[in-house]
Amino acid sequence: MIKVGIVGATGYTGVELLRLLAMHPEVELKTVTSRGEAGKPVSELFPSLRGHLDICFSVPDAKTLAACDVVFFATPHGVAHGLARPLMDAGVKIIDLSADFRIKDIALWEKWYGQTHGAPELAEQAVYGLPETNREQIAAAQLVACPGCYPTAVQLGLLPLLEHELVDASSLIADCKSGVSGGGRGAKVGSLMCESADSMKAYAVGAHRHSPEIVQQLSLTSIQPVKLTFVPHLSPMIRGIHATLYARLNVEDVDIQSLYEQRYINEPFVDVMPFGSTPETRSVRGSNYCRIGIHRPEGGDLLVICSVIDNLTKGSSGQAIQIMNLMFGLPEQTAINQPALLP
Amino acid sequence: MIKVGIVGATGYTGVELLRLLAMHPEVELKTVTSRGEAGKPVSELFPSLRGHLDICFSVPDAKTLAACDVVFFATPHGVAHGLARPLMDAGVKIIDLSADFRIKDIALWEKWYGQTHGAPELAEQAVYGLPETNREQIAAAQLVACPGCYPTAVQLGLLPLLEHELVDASSLIADCKSGVSGGGRGAKVGSLMCESADSMKAYAVGAHRHSPEIVQQLSLTSIQPVKLTFVPHLSPMIRGIHATLYARLNVEDVDIQSLYEQRYINEPFVDVMPFGSTPETRSVRGSNYCRIGIHRPEGGDLLVICSVIDNLTKGSSGQAIQIMNLMFGLPEQTAINQPALLP
Amino acid sequence: MIKVGIVGATGYTGVELLRLLAMHPEVELKTVTSRGEAGKPVSELFPSLRGHLDICFSVPDAKTLAACDVVFFATPHGVAHGLARPLMDAGVKIIDLSADFRIKDIALWEKWYGQTHGAPELAEQAVYGLPETNREQIAAAQLVACPGCYPTAVQLGLLPLLEHELVDASSLIADCKSGVSGGGRGAKVGSLMCESADSMKAYAVGAHRHSPEIVQQLSLTSIQPVKLTFVPHLSPMIRGIHATLYARLNVEDVDIQSLYEQRYINEPFVDVMPFGSTPETRSVRGSNYCRIGIHRPEGGDLLVICSVIDNLTKGSSGQAIQIMNLMFGLPEQTAINQPALLP
Amino acid sequence: MIKVGIVGATGYTGVELLRLLAMHPEVELKTVTSRGEAGKPVSELFPSLRGHLDICFSVPDAKTLAACDVVFFATPHGVAHGLARPLMDAGVKIIDLSADFRIKDIALWEKWYGQTHGAPELAEQAVYGLPETNREQIAAAQLVACPGCYPTAVQLGLLPLLEHELVDASSLIADCKSGVSGGGRGAKVGSLMCESADSMKAYAVGAHRHSPEIVQQLSLTSIQPVKLTFVPHLSPMIRGIHATLYARLNVEDVDIQSLYEQRYINEPFVDVMPFGSTPETRSVRGSNYCRIGIHRPEGGDLLVICSVIDNLTKGSSGQAIQIMNLMFGLPEQTAINQPALLP
Repeated sequence: MIKVGIVGATGYTGVELLRLLAMHPEVELKTVTSRGEAGKPVSELFPSLRGHLDICFSVPDAKTLAACDVVFFATPHGVAHGLARPLMDAGVKIIDLSADFRIKDIALWEKWYGQTHGAPELAEQAVYGLPETNREQIAAAQLVACPGCYPTAVQLGLLPLLEHELVDASSLIADCKSGVSGGGRGAKVGSLMCESADSMKAYAVGAHRHSPEIVQQLSLTSIQPVKLTFVPHLSPMIRGIHATLYARLNVEDVDIQSLYEQRYINEPFVDVMPFGSTPETRSVRGSNYCRIGIHRPEGGDLLVICSVIDNLTKGSSGQAIQIMNLMFGLPEQTAINQPALLP
Repeated sequence: MIKVGIVGATGYTGVELLRLLAMHPEVELKTVTSRGEAGKPVSELFPSLRGHLDICFSVPDAKTLAACDVVFFATPHGVAHGLARPLMDAGVKIIDLSADFRIKDIALWEKWYGQTHGAPELAEQAVYGLPETNREQIAAAQLVACPGCYPTAVQLGLLPLLEHELVDASSLIADCKSGVSGGGRGAKVGSLMCESADSMKAYAVGAHRHSPEIVQQLSLTSIQPVKLTFVPHLSPMIRGIHATLYARLNVEDVDIQSLYEQRYINEPFVDVMPFGSTPETRSVRGSNYCRIGIHRPEGGDLLVICSVIDNLTKGSSGQAIQIMNLMFGLPEQTAINQPALLP
Repeated sequence: MIKVGIVGATGYTGVELLRLLAMHPEVELKTVTSRGEAGKPVSELFPSLRGHLDICFSVPDAKTLAACDVVFFATPHGVAHGLARPLMDAGVKIIDLSADFRIKDIALWEKWYGQTHGAPELAEQAVYGLPETNREQIAAAQLVACPGCYPTAVQLGLLPLLEHELVDASSLIADCKSGVSGGGRGAKVGSLMCESADSMKAYAVGAHRHSPEIVQQLSLTSIQPVKLTFVPHLSPMIRGIHATLYARLNVEDVDIQSLYEQRYINEPFVDVMPFGSTPETRSVRGSNYCRIGIHRPEGGDLLVICSVIDNLTKGSSGQAIQIMNLMFGLPEQTAINQPALLP
Repeated sequence: MIKVGIVGATGYTGVELLRLLAMHPEVELKTVTSRGEAGKPVSELFPSLRGHLDICFSVPDAKTLAACDVVFFATPHGVAHGLARPLMDAGVKIIDLSADFRIKDIALWEKWYGQTHGAPELAEQAVYGLPETNREQIAAAQLVACPGCYPTAVQLGLLPLLEHELVDASSLIADCKSGVSGGGRGAKVGSLMCESADSMKAYAVGAHRHSPEIVQQLSLTSIQPVKLTFVPHLSPMIRGIHATLYARLNVEDVDIQSLYEQRYINEPFVDVMPFGSTPETRSVRGSNYCRIGIHRPEGGDLLVICSVIDNLTKGSSGQAIQIMNLMFGLPEQTAINQPALLP
């Protein structure tokens, strides 16, 4: 059994992690920390876990965490910077769901996250945890940065095109729609039911923190410099990301559909749907899948790729478990193989 | 492996059954019938099942069904009447999710369902499939009538009181709120998003078909004749039933909380929460639990019991699998033990 | 033109008041106060008002307020206690949307609201602002306490029965479902979209602050002592209250439908629907109506009354304007006569 | 008083028209037709109109319609083709909310709408009813084609750019998100609450009927041929369209914000928000406004324009009344000047 610790599990990625870990046959949950909720049973904060978890939140304890095989960080940005090093020295594997280790360029991280980077040397060492590009590195890593939700949907939707240099990398557009859970469980006016239900709006147009992450990763596979216009929208749903991706072909005769199908043929969690499909976010609700539908309106040179994930599962906690499975040599789909909840 | 057939799986109870059976380790799905969708892959109608089910809908075939170990009916009322007998003669076990075999009084059934009963002799033989009252009979049965969604929530909420004759059985009130999926996947104006979202209304006040079912079953444990005022409400959510139950105590000194805890102490899917809890329907979303919160406002004689289930899981397809597990001697929680999807 | 001031307009009752006042032909909005938002244009906080209001939030100023003909308080409980007296001395009329002056029994108010009452003498003087019972007193009042949302729906639904002593006043039940806006615009975890959407729960069972208000007012018309079990539920919608009321008849031959129709025949905002109707909350969304549907299941002695309002309109700001119209001798329906927004 | 008839008022544009006309001071509603609902009070189908409309649906009667000053068609495509001519001969003005007269190219209309055009000569005569481009022609017209919902949002968002030839007209992208009411009140599985709530999907990618309408109208102001990629999305909300528009600048030094502000300075229903604003659809819910926010990410050459309307108001019935006001010389804002319903 893998001894697991979770630092900071009071948010939505936390409860999603607990939901999935509770059914993981190889996991023993040793500690779940929260300074604010210390002493309270986890299932009191999240009654959905009653009958599945008998553990209480506790103040983070270095010794207890160091005795774990792996520690997940589901913390605000900056926290893992300080806590990761001693755990790693103790031999613990780290899976960080925050943005602390996603960006390699320290100055860039500091610019977008508005704070000093607390562990630049670890950022270099960290493996970016997208299994579809980094499976082997993840398996061998001690520290993995779990990708952001938007970056997961956008990368999986664009990768085959960039890997084959089929599109103009300098004019990419990602028009993304996210459920409100992407904003977290914090008490913010903008996330209130009466502010976000039955309405739609863009936000952080061209200025979202996931933008540099996407560009960094896409650039690794693109010869041409990547320029992306990223426009996220707050959508009146709980979970789900729908990325609508626009890319202009620079070749004519190419079977895009086959390309995608070949690229992902061995990927357990990427589903390339038949050409012209329009995947619904609910078709991945609570599941670890990314579903992709490819369109080429009027046979023109502008491709429209629809890529949908559950932001809390493949976009965060499900992917984190996929990473853990890889790091511990378990079958990659363990505990994250269930179909979506529909309706 | 248990060879399973499903008759009529194009509705919400159907897709929920498929979602759960897809993960059942002892089940082999042999046939999924639908006249209207025959020939179409199940996962085309329900893309959430892509990667999990490789089967197509087919026209119901007597021979194929007769070769199954168990056949689920997820059909409109009346259909199972005609199809059950030959399958039973062939030794097939039947789990009927429709109302065809729930009511013992044939005339009563005909009055409420507005059609002639097609199999009175089977109605007598059928076991009412609420495991919390009929576990042994279910295990031994060949034909089980899966309880309705409202009846499940209401019975589990009231049973301990009636079993101990603690309340006035002639003045029971069940004020119930159901998600829209309770109305099925049929194309009806009243179930449209723009008709049912962001609104609340009562319907079928004192005249809902689940009323005679509840009264029949509660009467089995009550010495006093049962009279129930049942008021269902259409609530703007996809899944979930919240039953708010009002019952007047006829004794004074009684520890209701302990009574409930004792009654359900060995029930894997009934969760008696601490006294005064207010269970949320989302705490059981997609799970097979019933959570119960008990209230006694101002210590008076009117009890308020909150009982919540997911209408498609414990209220239908999850319970159907619980029944199947019992009928085949499997651990009762197999394939239906996952926590709720929250948020 | 009536010179109007609003104290504390950053919440949902505030923006609803502004929406309606913006179209009131006899109103000149002189000041809208908010300490937190002082200096910011009202239409910046509420872009829905762009093009309709050119005013900025300002710090409450005694002189400016005293120059108004009427001041609305849309403030947290306790604020109006301190501010009302000097304004009244200056001849200003006060319409208080908070609970500060709703309860006549000072000790009772202090018990339920957990603070010392700041203006007991005004509580005595204040008129309870339900036009359907207090039209003349409101017209003559200087200080009116605008009823709570639940109390409005419950009183209008039960009044005719109690006025004629037709039901057992000691066993009343109000099972109420409210939209999330009833919880206000404050940043609270429980009001987040991801906590309250697609779910249903009871709260404050038998312990809601509106309970003593309802009992106080119903008692005024009931000879028999009133005992009410009040169970509010948080419902996944933005606006709306659905009160399902249970009352036991103590007479046999009575035409309840006619009774209600007669009682409300001259009420512009109470709509008694045909017997057996099930009013939807969306049928009053954004409007000042209360719609009532009367049921007598199986012709028995338990009446089921469905009473629906928009909690922010008839349940608060619309009613406040109805009160203002009465206080200033305007046609009662001015500016609040529009139909509901449906769908 | 203007004598008004409505043909086909059982859908969402119908009830929206009725909601707004009910408050129009210059309108007398003479007839509301529906073959299916003939004889039923309009307010029975739409209880939100109780107390406002005393009229019953009736079978369309040529004589009654011909006695009207203006007739609105809120009918399925093709119906107005057959009925408009005789009414026009009788001197009646026609405002058609369907697509029957929006497209000038008859062959194009027939291709996209899959039926023979029933009145080509009227299509030529019809005025396209976007007041922001065609105010004078509308005022003088006898037959006006009310623009589609998407076309309204997209045109208002792009017009200033095309009028000044500032962008590459051959690479326009409109990524649009619509509420479910855009799909109408017909009983379709895809519009069910349980199919469309809490989910997001694209549909008719590059193949939506509003595409030729948009291109036709934009082409009128663009010297360069217009090529538009139009990707509509079904969004889990009742009302609202959010058009996110991407256009590539072909000039460098230009103050886009001023350009928009100048273009719409006299438009009562187009609100150009401050540069960088992200309008919410709820800020126009139930109102006739279009709100626009302009973005230029990183000061680059790709403009992002956010344009929001209520699809049933400015996108249909509100605009129809704006058209009527123009046709009858009334103040343009009559009866459609109310602020949005928020929250």
